[in-house]
Amino acid sequence: MRTKEQYLSSLSDGREVYYRGKKVGDISEHPVLRIAASHASKLFGLDRSVQYENVGEVSRYFVVPRSSSDLISRHRLVYDSTMACSGIFNISQAIGSDAIFALHLVSRETDLKHHKEYSQRVKNYHESVAKNDLTLAVAQTDVKGDRKKRPHEQSDPDMYVHVTSIEKDGIVVNGAKAHTTQAAVSDEIIVIPTRAMVEKDADFAVAFAVPASTKGLKMIVRPIEELEGNSSAIISKQDYELETLTIFDNVFVPWERVFQCREYEMAGSLAVTFATFHRFTAVSYRSATANLYLGAALSMAKQNGILESAHVRDRLAEMVMYKELMRMSAISAANLPLMKDGVAIPNPLYTNIGKLYSNKNFSNILDGLVDISGGIISTLPSLEDQNEPFEKKYISKYLAGTGSGKERINSIRIAKELGASSQTGYMLTLMLHAEGSIEASKMALLKDADLVEAEKLVQAILEASAN
Amino acid sequence: MRTKEQYLSSLSDGREVYYRGKKVGDISEHPVLRIAASHASKLFGLDRSVQYENVGEVSRYFVVPRSSSDLISRHRLVYDSTMACSGIFNISQAIGSDAIFALHLVSRETDLKHHKEYSQRVKNYHESVAKNDLTLAVAQTDVKGDRKKRPHEQSDPDMYVHVTSIEKDGIVVNGAKAHTTQAAVSDEIIVIPTRAMVEKDADFAVAFAVPASTKGLKMIVRPIEELEGNSSAIISKQDYELETLTIFDNVFVPWERVFQCREYEMAGSLAVTFATFHRFTAVSYRSATANLYLGAALSMAKQNGILESAHVRDRLAEMVMYKELMRMSAISAANLPLMKDGVAIPNPLYTNIGKLYSNKNFSNILDGLVDISGGIISTLPSLEDQNEPFEKKYISKYLAGTGSGKERINSIRIAKELGASSQTGYMLTLMLHAEGSIEASKMALLKDADLVEAEKLVQAILEASAN
Amino acid sequence: MRTKEQYLSSLSDGREVYYRGKKVGDISEHPVLRIAASHASKLFGLDRSVQYENVGEVSRYFVVPRSSSDLISRHRLVYDSTMACSGIFNISQAIGSDAIFALHLVSRETDLKHHKEYSQRVKNYHESVAKNDLTLAVAQTDVKGDRKKRPHEQSDPDMYVHVTSIEKDGIVVNGAKAHTTQAAVSDEIIVIPTRAMVEKDADFAVAFAVPASTKGLKMIVRPIEELEGNSSAIISKQDYELETLTIFDNVFVPWERVFQCREYEMAGSLAVTFATFHRFTAVSYRSATANLYLGAALSMAKQNGILESAHVRDRLAEMVMYKELMRMSAISAANLPLMKDGVAIPNPLYTNIGKLYSNKNFSNILDGLVDISGGIISTLPSLEDQNEPFEKKYISKYLAGTGSGKERINSIRIAKELGASSQTGYMLTLMLHAEGSIEASKMALLKDADLVEAEKLVQAILEASAN
Amino acid sequence: MRTKEQYLSSLSDGREVYYRGKKVGDISEHPVLRIAASHASKLFGLDRSVQYENVGEVSRYFVVPRSSSDLISRHRLVYDSTMACSGIFNISQAIGSDAIFALHLVSRETDLKHHKEYSQRVKNYHESVAKNDLTLAVAQTDVKGDRKKRPHEQSDPDMYVHVTSIEKDGIVVNGAKAHTTQAAVSDEIIVIPTRAMVEKDADFAVAFAVPASTKGLKMIVRPIEELEGNSSAIISKQDYELETLTIFDNVFVPWERVFQCREYEMAGSLAVTFATFHRFTAVSYRSATANLYLGAALSMAKQNGILESAHVRDRLAEMVMYKELMRMSAISAANLPLMKDGVAIPNPLYTNIGKLYSNKNFSNILDGLVDISGGIISTLPSLEDQNEPFEKKYISKYLAGTGSGKERINSIRIAKELGASSQTGYMLTLMLHAEGSIEASKMALLKDADLVEAEKLVQAILEASAN
Repeated sequence: MRTKEQYLSSLSDGREVYYRGKKVGDISEHPVLRIAASHASKLFGLDRSVQYENVGEVSRYFVVPRSSSDLISRHRLVYDSTMACSGIFNISQAIGSDAIFALHLVSRETDLKHHKEYSQRVKNYHESVAKNDLTLAVAQTDVKGDRKKRPHEQSDPDMYVHVTSIEKDGIVVNGAKAHTTQAAVSDEIIVIPTRAMVEKDADFAVAFAVPASTKGLKMIVRPIEELEGNSSAIISKQDYELETLTIFDNVFVPWERVFQCREYEMAGSLAVTFATFHRFTAVSYRSATANLYLGAALSMAKQNGILESAHVRDRLAEMVMYKELMRMSAISAANLPLMKDGVAIPNPLYTNIGKLYSNKNFSNILDGLVDISGGIISTLPSLEDQNEPFEKKYISKYLAGTGSGKERINSIRIAKELGASSQTGYMLTLMLHAEGSIEASKMALLKDADLVEAEKLVQAILEASAN
Repeated sequence: MRTKEQYLSSLSDGREVYYRGKKVGDISEHPVLRIAASHASKLFGLDRSVQYENVGEVSRYFVVPRSSSDLISRHRLVYDSTMACSGIFNISQAIGSDAIFALHLVSRETDLKHHKEYSQRVKNYHESVAKNDLTLAVAQTDVKGDRKKRPHEQSDPDMYVHVTSIEKDGIVVNGAKAHTTQAAVSDEIIVIPTRAMVEKDADFAVAFAVPASTKGLKMIVRPIEELEGNSSAIISKQDYELETLTIFDNVFVPWERVFQCREYEMAGSLAVTFATFHRFTAVSYRSATANLYLGAALSMAKQNGILESAHVRDRLAEMVMYKELMRMSAISAANLPLMKDGVAIPNPLYTNIGKLYSNKNFSNILDGLVDISGGIISTLPSLEDQNEPFEKKYISKYLAGTGSGKERINSIRIAKELGASSQTGYMLTLMLHAEGSIEASKMALLKDADLVEAEKLVQAILEASAN
Repeated sequence: MRTKEQYLSSLSDGREVYYRGKKVGDISEHPVLRIAASHASKLFGLDRSVQYENVGEVSRYFVVPRSSSDLISRHRLVYDSTMACSGIFNISQAIGSDAIFALHLVSRETDLKHHKEYSQRVKNYHESVAKNDLTLAVAQTDVKGDRKKRPHEQSDPDMYVHVTSIEKDGIVVNGAKAHTTQAAVSDEIIVIPTRAMVEKDADFAVAFAVPASTKGLKMIVRPIEELEGNSSAIISKQDYELETLTIFDNVFVPWERVFQCREYEMAGSLAVTFATFHRFTAVSYRSATANLYLGAALSMAKQNGILESAHVRDRLAEMVMYKELMRMSAISAANLPLMKDGVAIPNPLYTNIGKLYSNKNFSNILDGLVDISGGIISTLPSLEDQNEPFEKKYISKYLAGTGSGKERINSIRIAKELGASSQTGYMLTLMLHAEGSIEASKMALLKDADLVEAEKLVQAILEASAN
Repeated sequence: MRTKEQYLSSLSDGREVYYRGKKVGDISEHPVLRIAASHASKLFGLDRSVQYENVGEVSRYFVVPRSSSDLISRHRLVYDSTMACSGIFNISQAIGSDAIFALHLVSRETDLKHHKEYSQRVKNYHESVAKNDLTLAVAQTDVKGDRKKRPHEQSDPDMYVHVTSIEKDGIVVNGAKAHTTQAAVSDEIIVIPTRAMVEKDADFAVAFAVPASTKGLKMIVRPIEELEGNSSAIISKQDYELETLTIFDNVFVPWERVFQCREYEMAGSLAVTFATFHRFTAVSYRSATANLYLGAALSMAKQNGILESAHVRDRLAEMVMYKELMRMSAISAANLPLMKDGVAIPNPLYTNIGKLYSNKNFSNILDGLVDISGGIISTLPSLEDQNEPFEKKYISKYLAGTGSGKERINSIRIAKELGASSQTGYMLTLMLHAEGSIEASKMALLKDADLVEAEKLVQAILEASAN
C-alpha cells in the first residue's frame, strides 16, 4: 500500500498535461492542480487496506464484490471516503475498480464466444494495479460529434476513439474522450466504449489501459473556476476533482493491455455493465455529497433565524429525502444483486432509480439552499473586503444574524460556494450528466423493470372477472 | 388456522353494522358488503402458516419481527397477499399485528414506569388472537372536531375516544373513530390513541381491544360507490375494503383488554410506534398496488398503439419508479431496523421516505394513467350498452384499437376503474391520507434524520479552512 | 331568442339516443339525462342577447370576434355562464360558434384555392343557427383505431368519419366520433376533421352539419356515474354535461350543409383553427371551474380549522394561481389576437400556454383539495345514513368541525364530489384530454413560439464579442 | 437628455466605492466595474425620449402610467432595453421610477393623514431627476440581523436603516442596506422601508433620496466573479449589474429629500406599492432574459444534433412557457390595473403570479439548459487553451458537433456562462430573491386574490341544492 507521498511523487512521470494554454511541469507543485492531486492523495490516508485472496494487502476498492455484504461494504467505503474529502467524491480507485469488475465479466463472455484471452489479461491487470495500489481514471465518453449519428457515420472518424492499426505487439488508437475525471492526477487511464456498436462500428469497439505518461496521450484540464473564480472558496481550496479532454494521438497499446478489440457486439455490454457498477458508486458518493447542501442549509437557516419556518422545513425535508434516497438505492441494489460468474452486480433497477432521482431532483436541492440562504450568497463582499481593517467593522457588523457576523459569514461562504459560485454550475452539470444522462437512465430503467408482473396482474383480474 | 368458511360464518355474531341507513343482518350475504368480507376471506386461502414459538401453528402476520430477515419476510407477505387480492391491500391481519407489535414495546415501557401489568395483557391478547387466527381492525383516527385544538380543548369531549368511567372490572369509553378499515368484517377492533397527549388529555390516552360484536359499538359503513357507482367495475367486484365511522357509545372494556389507560405521556409513543410498523406495511402494499396502475397503463398504451411514444415511456418510467421506490423503502427499512427489546422496528426514516414519496407522487401516477388512456375512460358507453345486441356491433367495432374492440374495452374498463371512476377519488384519498398525513410524515422524517452528520461535515470543512 | 321551454320541447324530435342499453324517448323527461338538458337550458335564462349586424337579435355567442375587446367579451361570456351553471361549463352555443368561426376562415381559403362556394354555405348556416338560437355540438375526435396509423392506413376505414358516396344532392358519410359533448341534447351536430390529412386521406377530410334527429345518426350516452354513483352528489344533481359515442351510419348530408369534402390539405388547418378558438373557450371556462376547487378547499380548511397552516396556504395559493393563470391566458390571447380576414383569432401561443398549464397542473389542484379535506371525503357515511333518525345524532355530532356537523357535512359533500367521487376521475380526464392532448398543445406551442428572437439575441451577443 | 459620455463622466464625483478591499477611484476606468457602468450607459443610447407634461423632453421611464396602454408601453420599454443589453436587465431608470410612482401614491395618503407635505417633495424630486435624466438605485432590503425579530427587537438597532436624529434642516440616518443593484454606478440612491412596521418601529419607517456621493455613504461592491472567474465569459464581458452593501454611516438628509419619517403605519404600504410596480418591471425584464436560456438551448441542441429529440422539445417548450408566462403576467397586469389617484398600478395579483412562477420555475429552466448542453459546459478547456496554437488543432477538431468546432465552442461558451459558471449561481439567486422572496409573493397573492367569488359559488350551489 502506497503512502500519500509515494503517490504524489509518482505524478512527475513526464505526463503531458496542459492547463490554461501551458504545459504543466510538476503537477503536485502547480498552484491550482496540486489541490486535485492533494484531494486524490487523501485516499492514501484512509483506512482501506484488506488482505485479498492471494494478492496480499490491497485497497478495499479492488475487492471484487461477491455478495450483498460486499456491496454494502463498498457503498460505505465510497460514502465514508467522500465524507473524509469534504463531501467531494474521491474517484481515484473507485471508478477504475468499477471498470475492472465490468471487464472481468465481459471479457469472460467475449473469450467464450471469440476464443480470446482477454479475461486473463484483465486478471493480470487487476492484480498489478491492486498490488501497486494505483489510481485509475476511466475515459469512456467520446467527444461524439453529431449525436444523431453512429460512430462510423461521423464525417470525422476521430469523433470516437478507435483502432487505426493492428500490429504484432499491440494496437494503435486515435481519438479523444471528453471530461475524464482526475485523468491528469491518475496513474493509469482505462478506456472503454461509450455505447453499443454495430458491425460497421467494429473499429470503435476498443477497451484498453495505458499509464498516464504514455506517449501521444495529451490531457487538457478544464479551468478550475470554482477555485480561481470564487475569492471566498473554502471547499474547493481543500478538495475538488479535475476533468480533462483526453486526446489519444496515435497511441500504441501493447496486447497485454488490450481488453476489447473490434468485438463490436460486446461494446454495449461493457458500457452498460460498467455503468451499473459506476452508478452504484454514484449513488454512494452522492448521498455523502448531499450532506454538504443539507449542512449548509441548516447552517444558514440557523444564522438567519428561520429554522422553524414551514417553507424552510419543507426544503430541509427534501434535502434529507434526497440524501437518504441515494442510500436507499444503494442498500436495495446491494441487497438484491445480480449474480454472474460469482460476481455480485448491484441491482441495476434500484441503482438506476437512485441515479435518476438524483438527476431529476438536484436542481430542486440547489433551489432550496438558495431559497433558505437569501440573496446575500450572491452579494457577499469579497474576502479582500472582509480582511481590510476599515471595512471589516462594517461587514462583520452588518452581516450578523442570530449569531455573530463572523459566524454568519462563514456559513454564507459555504452556501455561496455551493449555491452561487462557479461550483454551483459545475455540480449541477455533474449531477445531471455524470455517470450517464437522464435519458440513458430512463431507458435502462424500463429495460430492467419487471413489467410482466404488472401485466399479469391485470390479466388475472380480467380472467377472474370473466368467470 | 381457520378456513374461509369459518371466518365468514363468524361474522354473524350480532355486530351492529349500518349501510345506507339500514342495519345489516348477515354481512356475508349483503349484496355489497359481502365482497369486502370475501376479500378479507381470501387471506385464509393463502399460504401463511408458520410454527411460532410456543403458540403453535399461526398466521405469519402474528410473528414478531426480530431481525432484518423477519422484516423482509413481512414485506413479502404483505406484497404477495396484495397481489393475490387484485392489487388491493388485505388489511385483515396486517394492521392488527402492526398494532400488537407497538403495544408490546410501549406496554413494557409503561409497566416499568408505572408498575402496571399491561405487557402481560398484550402478550395474552397476542397469543389469543394468533391461536384463534382472528382478523383485526385498528381504530386510531379520532373524529377530531376542530383540528387546531387538543383533545381536552374540544367543546365536545367526545371528539376523541376517552375514558368516561373507571370501574372495578374495567373501563367505560365513549367517542368515535373515523374511517376504520374493514371494521365491519373483522373479528376484533383494537383502539389506540391518534396523537401525543398532555396531562389534561389523560382521559383520551386509552388503548384497548373489543370484539366487533361488543355492546354499544356501532359501525356505519361508507357507501361503496366504486362498486355501486361504476357499472363497468371489474376490480371492485372482486376486491375492495370498506371503512366505517366507528362509534363507541359507552362501551365497557374489561381490564384484561385494556392496554393503556390515562398514561398520557405514552400516548404519542404508542401512536408513533404503531405508525412506523404500519407505514412499513403501507409501502409494502402500495408497491403491489402500483402494479395495477402500471399494468393498466401498459395495456392501454398497447391497445392505443402508443407504447413507443416518448411521453408514454416517461409516464411508464414514473410508474416503475413509484412501484420500486416503495420496495426500496421497505428493503432499506428492513435492513437497518431499530432494535428494541429484541423487536426489529422498521427503520423509521426509510419507512417515512417511502410513505412520503407515495403521498406526494400518487396524483402524478394517476395523471399518467389518464394521459395514456385517453378520454375514452370517461366516455366509455355503459356495460348495458355493451351487452345490448343492437349496439354491440357499433361499440365493439368503434372501440377497437391495435387489437379487437372487445380486448380494448376490457383494458378501458380497468383503466376507467382506476382513473375515471369513484375508485379514482377513493384511491387518491387513500394514498394521501391513509397511514398518516403528508405533514405528519414530514415531521417524522426531520425528527428521525441524522442532521448532525451534515452539520459536522460543514463544521469540519470550516475548521480545516481556518488552519 | 328562444326560451328554456322552447329549447327543451325541441328535444322531442325523434333523435336516436341510447342510455344504458335502452333507447331514450323524451330526453327532457329521462330521470338522469334531463339534468344535462336542464343544464343546457340554463343558457336561455342568461342575459346574452345582442343586436348583430343584419341578422337581428342573437345570442352573443354567435358574434364573430373582430377585436381584442370582442374576445375579452367572449371570455367573460364563457366565464360568467360557467359560474351561472355551478362552475360547470355550458357548451351549448360556445363550441358550435368556435367551429363556425373556424369554418368561416378556412372555407374562404378553400374557395379561393378550389373555386368552391363553401364560405357562402357557412355564412348561411351561421345566420340560420343564430336566428333560430340553436344549440350545437361539435363532433371532432374520431374513434381512431390504431393511433400509430393515419386514417387511410387503418384496417377498418370507419375508424375515421369519411365520405362513402358523393351524390347529386349531397354526400353520404360513415364512421363514428368519440366523446361528443352534449350531442344528445343539442339541436345540431357539426362535424369537422380531427387532424391534418394527406392525399390518400382525402375521403376523411370532411366537414358538415346535421340536425340531431338526422336519420342514421345514433348517439350512445356515457353512464352518468357522477350522479348515479354518488349518493351525496350536489353539483351533478344540478349541472353536468354528457358525452356520446356518435355514430354516423350512412348518414346523408345535403350539399348546403357540407363545408369540406375531400380538400385534404385544408383538414389540418380547420382542425387547428377550431382548436385555437375552442382552447380560448377552454381557458375561459376552466378559470370559472377552478372556483369550485378553490371554494371547496376554503370551505374544508375552515371547517377543519386549518386555514392558517402553511401547507394549506400553499395549496390555496396554487389553486388561485391555477384559476388566474387561465384568465391571464385568455386576457393575453385576447389582447394580442391574430387578425385574419377581419376575424380576431385568439393568440394561439397564449391560448396554448393556458391550456397546457391547465393540463399539467390539474392533478395537483385535486391533490390539494384532497390534502386539505382529509380522509373523510372518502369515508363519509351515505346520505341515507344522514337522514336516518337513529344515526343522525351520531353523524351530525361526530362530523362537526369548527362549526356544526351539518355545516361540515355540506362542505364534505362538495369536497367529496370534486375530490373523491366518480366526478373526480371524470374531471381529471376532462382537464387532461378535452380540447386536445398535452402532446398536441406542446407541439402547437413550439410551432407558434417566436424562437428566432432568442436565437438572434445569442447571435448578436456572439457578434458583439467578436468585435 | 444626457448622452452616454455625460453619464459616465458624472460618476467621478468622489463617491465612496470599494472593490475587493480597495477604494475605487474613477469607476468608469476600473477594469471590472467599468463594464457595469458601460452597461448602465447603454440606456442613453436607446430611443427613450418623450415630451412629458410640463417637464419637457424626458426619458420614458419617468412617465407616470395612467392607463393600461401606458403600462403596456412600460412593459415593452423594459423588455426592449433588456434585449438591447444582451438580455441583462438595465435597472438604471427602471427601479427608481418604480419607487417614485409608489412614493407619489403613498406620500399623498400620508399627507392627508398627517398634514405633511411629502407629496410636493416627491413631485419636485421626480421633476428634478427627470429633467436631469438621472440614474437611480433603490436601497430597500435591510441587512435584517435575526429574521425572526422586528426592527426594534434586534439587539443591534443598525440592522435596519433608521433615523438617529431629527434636526432643523433634515434628518440623520444610520444602518445598511443589502444588495443594492447598480448603486455604485447610479447618480442617486432612493431609500425606502423593506417591510410593514409597528409603532415601536417608528424610527425605522424612513424614506429618502441622496446623491451617490453623499458624505457617509459607503458602497462595497460584490466581487464580479461571473466575469473574473470565467475565462470564457462572453455576456458578462459586455453586460452585468453590480450590487453593493450600502452603508449609511450617520448620513445627513435635508428635508426636501425626506419622503417618510416615522409614519410607521405607512411603511408597509410604501414597501408593497413599490414591490408591485417593481415586480411588473421584473416580469418584463425576465421575459427578455429568458431568451438567453432559450437561445442558448436552441443553439446547443442544434450543435449537438438533438433538436428533434422528445426530451429536448419538452425542455424547449418549458423555456418558451417560462418566457411567455412572464409576458402574459405583464399583459394581464397592464390590462386590469388598479387605478388610484389617476395612477395605473399594475394588477398586483397578475404581477405576483408571474413573479411567483418565475421564482419557482427558474431552476427548472437551468436544468433544461444543462440537460440539453451536456457535460462539456463544465469541462470546456479554457480560452487560453483555445488560443494556444498547438492545442487549437485538437480542440477545434474534437469539440465539433453538427457544425464546426469553432461554432460549437461559441455555443458552449454561452451555455457555460449561463449554466455552468459563477453567473449560474448569481442568476439563480437573482431569480429566487430579487424583487421579493417566494414567501412574500405567496402572501401577497393570497391577499390580493378574490377568494369570495369561489366561496360564493360553493354557497350558491349548496343553497340551490337545499331548495
